[in-house]
Amino acid sequence: MSEQKNKILEETIKRLLRRGAHSNLRKIVNKTHAADLSVIFRNLSVDSQRRLFYMIDDYEQRAVLLSELTEYTITDFIETMDVDELLEVFDYMPADDVADLIADLPKETAEAVLDKMNNEESEEVEDLLSYDDDTAGGIMVPDFVALSEVITAKGAIESLQKDFPDVEMPFYLYVVDDNERLVGVVSLRQLVVVKPTTPLKEFMTTDIFSVRTDMDQEEVAKIVAHYDILAVPVVDDSNRLMGIVTVDDVIDIFRQEATEDILKMAGVGEEFVETQSVVSSTRIRLPWLFASCLGGILAFSIIGHFESSLKQATYLAAFLPVIMGMGGNVGTQSSTIVVRGLATGRLLSSELWHVVSKELCIGLILGTIYGGLIALAAEIRFGAELNTGMLAVSVGLAVLCSMSIAALMGSLVPMILGRIHVDPAVATGPFVTTSVDIISVYCYFTIATHLLGL
Amino acid sequence: MSEQKNKILEETIKRLLRRGAHSNLRKIVNKTHAADLSVIFRNLSVDSQRRLFYMIDDYEQRAVLLSELTEYTITDFIETMDVDELLEVFDYMPADDVADLIADLPKETAEAVLDKMNNEESEEVEDLLSYDDDTAGGIMVPDFVALSEVITAKGAIESLQKDFPDVEMPFYLYVVDDNERLVGVVSLRQLVVVKPTTPLKEFMTTDIFSVRTDMDQEEVAKIVAHYDILAVPVVDDSNRLMGIVTVDDVIDIFRQEATEDILKMAGVGEEFVETQSVVSSTRIRLPWLFASCLGGILAFSIIGHFESSLKQATYLAAFLPVIMGMGGNVGTQSSTIVVRGLATGRLLSSELWHVVSKELCIGLILGTIYGGLIALAAEIRFGAELNTGMLAVSVGLAVLCSMSIAALMGSLVPMILGRIHVDPAVATGPFVTTSVDIISVYCYFTIATHLLGL
Repeated sequence: MSEQKNKILEETIKRLLRRGAHSNLRKIVNKTHAADLSVIFRNLSVDSQRRLFYMIDDYEQRAVLLSELTEYTITDFIETMDVDELLEVFDYMPADDVADLIADLPKETAEAVLDKMNNEESEEVEDLLSYDDDTAGGIMVPDFVALSEVITAKGAIESLQKDFPDVEMPFYLYVVDDNERLVGVVSLRQLVVVKPTTPLKEFMTTDIFSVRTDMDQEEVAKIVAHYDILAVPVVDDSNRLMGIVTVDDVIDIFRQEATEDILKMAGVGEEFVETQSVVSSTRIRLPWLFASCLGGILAFSIIGHFESSLKQATYLAAFLPVIMGMGGNVGTQSSTIVVRGLATGRLLSSELWHVVSKELCIGLILGTIYGGLIALAAEIRFGAELNTGMLAVSVGLAVLCSMSIAALMGSLVPMILGRIHVDPAVATGPFVTTSVDIISVYCYFTIATHLLGL
Repeated sequence: MSEQKNKILEETIKRLLRRGAHSNLRKIVNKTHAADLSVIFRNLSVDSQRRLFYMIDDYEQRAVLLSELTEYTITDFIETMDVDELLEVFDYMPADDVADLIADLPKETAEAVLDKMNNEESEEVEDLLSYDDDTAGGIMVPDFVALSEVITAKGAIESLQKDFPDVEMPFYLYVVDDNERLVGVVSLRQLVVVKPTTPLKEFMTTDIFSVRTDMDQEEVAKIVAHYDILAVPVVDDSNRLMGIVTVDDVIDIFRQEATEDILKMAGVGEEFVETQSVVSSTRIRLPWLFASCLGGILAFSIIGHFESSLKQATYLAAFLPVIMGMGGNVGTQSSTIVVRGLATGRLLSSELWHVVSKELCIGLILGTIYGGLIALAAEIRFGAELNTGMLAVSVGLAVLCSMSIAALMGSLVPMILGRIHVDPAVATGPFVTTSVDIISVYCYFTIATHLLGL
């Protein structure tokens, strides 16, 4: 639903809520897709959320809505639900979504819910909760179709109807041996086009991609994307099939990982915390600024060292912002390109020298162009007052240095981190700009002191 | 295949190439998935690429490999292929991939290829090429299953085998009326579990999500992700079914759009140009630095205006880097959070005041903490030399100002742009940091001039 339509729907719902027009609300709420309702819910009070939630007749839609809401950390609503209400919804929710929700509940509520669940269900959920969050085990769905290799295509279709009515997207059907070990996969399409009496093992694909339960979720997502598949089976150490990771979860992983990288590069931690309180947001961002603070303190010590030069040529100070600004921006450009390139596989860490030397060239060219421009501007503005063009030359050279060094460091640091298998995104942002600042300041004053004979 | 295994495979291939061990190479190349080969190819010479390419027996694998290679803009290899060689591969390639490749060929080659193609195929490709690149029409696949609503489930399955052998992922089968207009959809799963004599219109879903050919690709991707579907049908103005956009393309779109935003926020243009020449990369990045340059020139004019203050208190200059650095980093933090939040739907532009006031609070708290810290450091370093604590106070206040204004602007500007439907990502990066620099410098000198009685 377009943003416009959603806004109109939201206004309608709010108006009907104010009027208490319950039968109209009931109609609307049952006609609207849960994903669209979840967007509207974010702008309603918890009280209104509860009223609307219980107007939804389809329990499966309630389950979808609840899962969608928690993605945006609307925990207020969940907290108003008691154990029985939660269990009622969980009955219609896939096990992996139940596990995700339970993981976010307060400890006592979570335990109360698990206690009241029947054994089979609570075991399944607890199994899923035993895996680390950001691993294949933590994101997999335990609902999949597993068939024996000796049954026929016809038998497989019957089994699909009888034994696996709840499996959401059975486009791949996995084939296992007597010990539940993964031996092959068939597609639903293959099942309908082969002769019904053909046993699975005659047409199943045995060369299967699979991942282990402890694999990092980003690796899993990259495999699904790289090989253009719709799901990947998750196995344990003995190659027993434990679950599958489906492509819709892969999309969410990529968006999450992109957000993580973006936030890391800006020095804001890893998780999207905008929806948290002022105090927690501040606490998360505080340490990332510390490197910058140390760098700034180091910078003013360096400038203090050049005190006598400054006394003789106070104009030097005027150009600090432009020299640092140009360097900072080029450094951000270079490091962003390299970090993103490494993350998407466009750049390989084996290409280090190629990439860094290219960035250095670009930095030198940009530095020469802008150095010249700024030197000219400096001469125009201050040339008459001072009797030397050397200030403008110093400024121009400093800009050139600043921009070249920024391009060099901005590309070199993430590349090196990539080589030694440290996440390159962590180094950029504050780290690169701060070190470029310090080096630029030092170069600037050294150049100016020499050229102006201070 | 893990990065390690891929590296080993690459070394093996290089070694065998040097030795001219063709039959071993042939074996390896035919056993390796095209997606993995494409990664290895990037580190081989064009000559080796050609040799290996023509060792692949499976023409469909060659087609997949060629598509994968062009994703990383390895145009050198494609340029060595003549028209007949291209046609040979295109025969085994889906029409949308052919269209993408042809769009990247030099004009004469593209026309020669289209001329030599048989009419039906070239018409299909030319149709696809008529749509804008980043729209539903530009990314859709014209291969889909379209059935009449009156045929039975059994008839549908037979039709699938007979009429649609090439459709890649027929998990959704679309139902059309006599005028090719989209009226419903059935899933392959439904086909196998209902009674074979049931006509499609009795169990098809009529409430379908569909998109128009001119819809922006990012909107299309968001719809597929929002509703957790595997494909979305693309229709024209008369609701006639023209193609489908599948979930694997949606994954690529999200990654592309994330990269675009990341590059925009750093002021590097929109497309990933790292693989282009030094000259083109420089040309793309040059203009984005201009705002920064203008800002820097404005900054040195401002400081020039405060020349007399500087002459009297040369120490003032020493603190410019730290004040600008802290402001710049907080500004980047805030703008990154807001831009990414808006892009992923975590933040809504309707929440402007809530978000901006929160960011301002955070900026004030961080500014107070770091302002105090830096003022203390300034007093320690320079306190003995000057006889006034007022310098330290000025510096502290300037840091507080800088960081608060940075948080305010960093959140306000993207939010406002979001409200007026301009892409918020464009404004961040150089724009926010440059304006924060200018304002911080002005505040600093104004405060210092007053407090130090200059």
